[in-house]
Amino acid sequence: MRTILRYGQIGGTLNAFIGDVHRKAISIDGQAELVAGCFSTRNPEANVATGEHYGIEAGRIYRNYKEMVEAEAARTVDRIDFVVICTPNNTHYEIAKAFILKGIHIVCEKPLCFTATEAEELCRLAKERGVLFCVTYTYTGYNMVKQARQMVAEGAIGKVLDVKGEYLQDWLSDEVGDDVHTDRKLSVWRMNPESSGITNCVGDIGTHIEETSAYIVGSPVKRLAAVLDRFGHPLDLNANMLVEFENGAHGTFSCSQVAAGHYNGLSIRVFGTKGAIEWEQEHPDFLRYTPKGEPTRILTRAAHTGGHALEINRIPSGHPEGLTMAFANIYRTFTRALLNKANGKANDGEWDLDFPTVEDGLRGVRFIEGCVRSDSAGSTWVEL
Amino acid sequence: MRTILRYGQIGGTLNAFIGDVHRKAISIDGQAELVAGCFSTRNPEANVATGEHYGIEAGRIYRNYKEMVEAEAARTVDRIDFVVICTPNNTHYEIAKAFILKGIHIVCEKPLCFTATEAEELCRLAKERGVLFCVTYTYTGYNMVKQARQMVAEGAIGKVLDVKGEYLQDWLSDEVGDDVHTDRKLSVWRMNPESSGITNCVGDIGTHIEETSAYIVGSPVKRLAAVLDRFGHPLDLNANMLVEFENGAHGTFSCSQVAAGHYNGLSIRVFGTKGAIEWEQEHPDFLRYTPKGEPTRILTRAAHTGGHALEINRIPSGHPEGLTMAFANIYRTFTRALLNKANGKANDGEWDLDFPTVEDGLRGVRFIEGCVRSDSAGSTWVEL
Amino acid sequence: MRTILRYGQIGGTLNAFIGDVHRKAISIDGQAELVAGCFSTRNPEANVATGEHYGIEAGRIYRNYKEMVEAEAARTVDRIDFVVICTPNNTHYEIAKAFILKGIHIVCEKPLCFTATEAEELCRLAKERGVLFCVTYTYTGYNMVKQARQMVAEGAIGKVLDVKGEYLQDWLSDEVGDDVHTDRKLSVWRMNPESSGITNCVGDIGTHIEETSAYIVGSPVKRLAAVLDRFGHPLDLNANMLVEFENGAHGTFSCSQVAAGHYNGLSIRVFGTKGAIEWEQEHPDFLRYTPKGEPTRILTRAAHTGGHALEINRIPSGHPEGLTMAFANIYRTFTRALLNKANGKANDGEWDLDFPTVEDGLRGVRFIEGCVRSDSAGSTWVEL
Amino acid sequence: MRTILRYGQIGGTLNAFIGDVHRKAISIDGQAELVAGCFSTRNPEANVATGEHYGIEAGRIYRNYKEMVEAEAARTVDRIDFVVICTPNNTHYEIAKAFILKGIHIVCEKPLCFTATEAEELCRLAKERGVLFCVTYTYTGYNMVKQARQMVAEGAIGKVLDVKGEYLQDWLSDEVGDDVHTDRKLSVWRMNPESSGITNCVGDIGTHIEETSAYIVGSPVKRLAAVLDRFGHPLDLNANMLVEFENGAHGTFSCSQVAAGHYNGLSIRVFGTKGAIEWEQEHPDFLRYTPKGEPTRILTRAAHTGGHALEINRIPSGHPEGLTMAFANIYRTFTRALLNKANGKANDGEWDLDFPTVEDGLRGVRFIEGCVRSDSAGSTWVEL
Repeated sequence: MRTILRYGQIGGTLNAFIGDVHRKAISIDGQAELVAGCFSTRNPEANVATGEHYGIEAGRIYRNYKEMVEAEAARTVDRIDFVVICTPNNTHYEIAKAFILKGIHIVCEKPLCFTATEAEELCRLAKERGVLFCVTYTYTGYNMVKQARQMVAEGAIGKVLDVKGEYLQDWLSDEVGDDVHTDRKLSVWRMNPESSGITNCVGDIGTHIEETSAYIVGSPVKRLAAVLDRFGHPLDLNANMLVEFENGAHGTFSCSQVAAGHYNGLSIRVFGTKGAIEWEQEHPDFLRYTPKGEPTRILTRAAHTGGHALEINRIPSGHPEGLTMAFANIYRTFTRALLNKANGKANDGEWDLDFPTVEDGLRGVRFIEGCVRSDSAGSTWVEL
Repeated sequence: MRTILRYGQIGGTLNAFIGDVHRKAISIDGQAELVAGCFSTRNPEANVATGEHYGIEAGRIYRNYKEMVEAEAARTVDRIDFVVICTPNNTHYEIAKAFILKGIHIVCEKPLCFTATEAEELCRLAKERGVLFCVTYTYTGYNMVKQARQMVAEGAIGKVLDVKGEYLQDWLSDEVGDDVHTDRKLSVWRMNPESSGITNCVGDIGTHIEETSAYIVGSPVKRLAAVLDRFGHPLDLNANMLVEFENGAHGTFSCSQVAAGHYNGLSIRVFGTKGAIEWEQEHPDFLRYTPKGEPTRILTRAAHTGGHALEINRIPSGHPEGLTMAFANIYRTFTRALLNKANGKANDGEWDLDFPTVEDGLRGVRFIEGCVRSDSAGSTWVEL
Repeated sequence: MRTILRYGQIGGTLNAFIGDVHRKAISIDGQAELVAGCFSTRNPEANVATGEHYGIEAGRIYRNYKEMVEAEAARTVDRIDFVVICTPNNTHYEIAKAFILKGIHIVCEKPLCFTATEAEELCRLAKERGVLFCVTYTYTGYNMVKQARQMVAEGAIGKVLDVKGEYLQDWLSDEVGDDVHTDRKLSVWRMNPESSGITNCVGDIGTHIEETSAYIVGSPVKRLAAVLDRFGHPLDLNANMLVEFENGAHGTFSCSQVAAGHYNGLSIRVFGTKGAIEWEQEHPDFLRYTPKGEPTRILTRAAHTGGHALEINRIPSGHPEGLTMAFANIYRTFTRALLNKANGKANDGEWDLDFPTVEDGLRGVRFIEGCVRSDSAGSTWVEL
Repeated sequence: MRTILRYGQIGGTLNAFIGDVHRKAISIDGQAELVAGCFSTRNPEANVATGEHYGIEAGRIYRNYKEMVEAEAARTVDRIDFVVICTPNNTHYEIAKAFILKGIHIVCEKPLCFTATEAEELCRLAKERGVLFCVTYTYTGYNMVKQARQMVAEGAIGKVLDVKGEYLQDWLSDEVGDDVHTDRKLSVWRMNPESSGITNCVGDIGTHIEETSAYIVGSPVKRLAAVLDRFGHPLDLNANMLVEFENGAHGTFSCSQVAAGHYNGLSIRVFGTKGAIEWEQEHPDFLRYTPKGEPTRILTRAAHTGGHALEINRIPSGHPEGLTMAFANIYRTFTRALLNKANGKANDGEWDLDFPTVEDGLRGVRFIEGCVRSDSAGSTWVEL
């Protein structure tokens, strides 16, 4: 019986934020070892340095993903079980496709790819090849987000009537106003259509609102009307939407990268016929729950949770778990599902495949396309 | 020189919430005495009891507003200077008109009336007759709302980019879901088109979002797209909007009377090129102010205010002023303006007429009509 | 049957903070009219101007309290029912005593007087003469403080184990550190032993902690050990205490006038065998209530209150009541009790005399003396 | 040059909370591998299972610490560099001493040991043998606690005047009141003097207040007066203290395990002549900073930090780092210092030895002894 998996990584040199979060998150539960990688194509030195830092043998530090997929697929022993893709958005599709075709399982950063057509192809191929494909919408990994999903599913707030989601950041504030730094390096790739696709803000953070709220509500967005603000740039930095979920609930979504005073302000509030649930990413271990007509209760992780959220709990209440644990929760489920698969066990429990999948990735791409389509047509309503 | 004004009141028997708030607010600064009234037409006993409670002489407790306007207008001495109208929405127009025509100044609850046509007529008449006409959008009376308006005007947050307003209550929660009480007395008049007009929630609280945000931003809403939720009732209980201000800023407005956990949750957040300002009615003495790139500052009434907001300050910082003081601030300005007028002084200072007027009332009616028009047309965009 | 009382005021010219709060608080319910006063002895012009501003007849604007007490006591008609004493602390005793001896009821600012001996005399005299004597410990007037008292009394948190009270302000911050302004006018009388007595901070705000917590807990402080910080000044600006209540509960009290970031930060937290209650003056309409083992509930005024707290409720939940309403609550009870007395009705209901009395004032003086005695003896324990 | 260390662990089977936190924290930066251990003496099966789970070779899964220290010390290759001690408090002293004597570096859970005499011996021995000895007072590892220490050191709040520390939990709430479960397994060892020593609450969490506040303030506690509440149990469950720091600042400390509504509520507030700093463990990425006379600023990790706190930053602002990262920060510094030592580099940078040491452990033991001594003597003042 296998107990440890092997993985490779594409993108994510030593100093890159998200690539490092992936490695740390995997290390927390120790279910997978990094054994191969292509951490940078443009910067061979950084590629090698990163690989060496992690003790990867020289022959498995690859110059590009094509070399890697061929070499790994050709191995008869110690082949990687899954690949983690942390490259810029414009490369996800071709890399993911190459690995699927070799039957290697996938963890890919979001957004999944640039077009719904590409995303549909990846969904189809993953299904055909039996590949487990996780798209890291991190925030559904938080313990209290799972608790919220459970509570909504169990009817704690009755029928969902209204959903308010927002995701506010301030890191591109210098891009607006009189003192715009058009040459700021920081923002280059996010604001460049070539690497970011048709959106910046909506694709980077707006999709998290959709994914996290759909996860909690248990129903995706069906229609929307969106206003995107570009403030003179080629891509959006701010957006507001009216949304309608498949279950009939209405609501608003707002995302911004120019909202002073907000750093990673994702919040989801769900109002139902019997109560309400409110969650904020910057204080993730808490959940405000109001049964209709009663005082609001501050639910605390571990102390006031049950079911799956309680089972997957890591440390006692009052000790903040933080973002890395949310990531680790996703990886723990993903790797356990892979191990089950490797060991011939079924993944038939209710939460066995509780990680964001390529299907969520497809929905995310459709959401992005819908926002742009609506905005281009005078912010009229579009179906997703 | 006159120092004390005389006023009459229509509506607002002893147990009515808002009528009492008006009287208490006026009493705080002692600039006007209640000397006449018609507190109820349908309930003559409550009418007389209220009048007597306030020591009004028998001859000036009137059976209906028509009797009152005639009698008061005919008086040569001690005639009322202004009338306070706290009756159901459907009567505001005719009562206000009758008093304007007699040259009696007016304070009227919002919404001003039912149609923009009526509102335009009231605006025109008030102007022609030189009548001061205040519409009590209470929340612009809060000290820190004035501080916010000042700061935006002085450029503290640069050019306004985005505005998020919301007003959430829960008091009609029992009107949705399985346990709907269709016979609940509490909600009768608000949810009855005859007394409430074409909206319930949007007219009752949604208009406060528009008025308060326009006051802070210094620019009104120009266009919007609205989704109204009626949940099987004739009028709306929940609404979401995309808005565009005249100054070009976009944003969202949300109002609800079925949002569990929220009691009178008006909040306005304004994001600009140089910073942001955020205010919540349930904690009115505080203002969150974030200069771009710096930590958020918690501004406290009196301690961190200046200009007009500091001058009109009533009690030291840290001692909550509360709703009644917001009301009293409006009345203090209104009565001072009337006294100036009575004493032949000009009201030409920047803040001399700093109270919500019949023009604001007109804008409120247009906002309500715009919301319904948009919603009826599939939530498309409409100009106000 | 009398429905309106007459009162006189000593101290509290037009611009004085607390004198004005008293007048506004009384005006809110309209149960008493200001008909006499001596607003300043040292400044005859301000005295007359204040009297005239409130329409007091010339003959009842007195030059000093002695003239006032004689003249008012001598009146056979329209004599004042009660006097409001808002003068500096060092004058409370003699003024209060003079009015008691004439059978005139009293509202006096805290601290009641300078020594327990004086306070005991006032208690005895008030009892002998049947005088109602209110000492305005404002904070027990807040609706949610009454709700807290009720809940503790009803056993909502079980047996009280621990009490943490604090009252932090920053307004004397400039008195410490390198940039001390020894000539600051603002702080003169508070920091002058002649006008303030043996303490500044403990007497001004520390006593509020004792009074408010004793009111909520239903048991006074019995013993304490105190550390007073004078930072080179004759009187204290900061203090910390270990306390033991009569019911056996332990806890800490802290007060400060040099705590940057705190304006009027009175908070009381009570922990019991079955739960906890926490209240903060800067957000007075809320109460945190935690039943043991369950999530914390945010109780909101009016929405989640019962009994007396619900009955005395003034405006709907979510609309902040503020400090003036807390004051008005005290005055409403006090004036109703006086009216009952005047009209021959018993004050035998549980909450009929629910205002802070001269006995509370005595306890406050003992608390102050205890703190100074403990501090002087090396912060050892003293009995109150 | 060595880049990876080897460590062994004593205590901390698979299901134990704190042992697992240590392993996860070490894994995050990957600077040390677990190669030996004695995870349980009483439960040989759990011991072996834990060792196997982490892939430790059979010969290095020891039956008791004595066997381990002998065997490891005897190894000529791959000997462990340091040992992590996570056993009950009563065993720390003898285990730590045994490893020091063999020159093996140490990470030990707090409290360090039972008596100051023992602690002094460990300090002396560690110094003599050149052993790096970390005592895991976790909370000084938080990024914003380091930022607070920096700011105080740089004079941001001037001279420190007052310190308020508290640490409130509720997990032993069932031990007080009518429904005491004297046989509750959960609380057995903490409340048993044999395993916990002379205190429960003070030793478990009270010492964290002392350590964290001393770290921020840059000065330890010198004298105190303490009241310990045992509520009928042999050891304390609640305590309050008056404290005096060496720098002359006064303040209060409170700790409790029976404070309903608080889970791991450590908070430190420091007031100085030029401002104040306030930090709460349950929201560790934020710091309230108030420069005297100005509004409070909400400092956010990464966004508003500098110096060392910025350098050691792990993920972008707004993404909560959580407890495990605080632990990992301690381990990163400790292992880097060990690697420097191993590689012949000096640890002479300002922050090179920025981890809690055996000297802090000694101070913690003195604090515990002082609290008990004071309480036993009627809560009088004692020197530490």
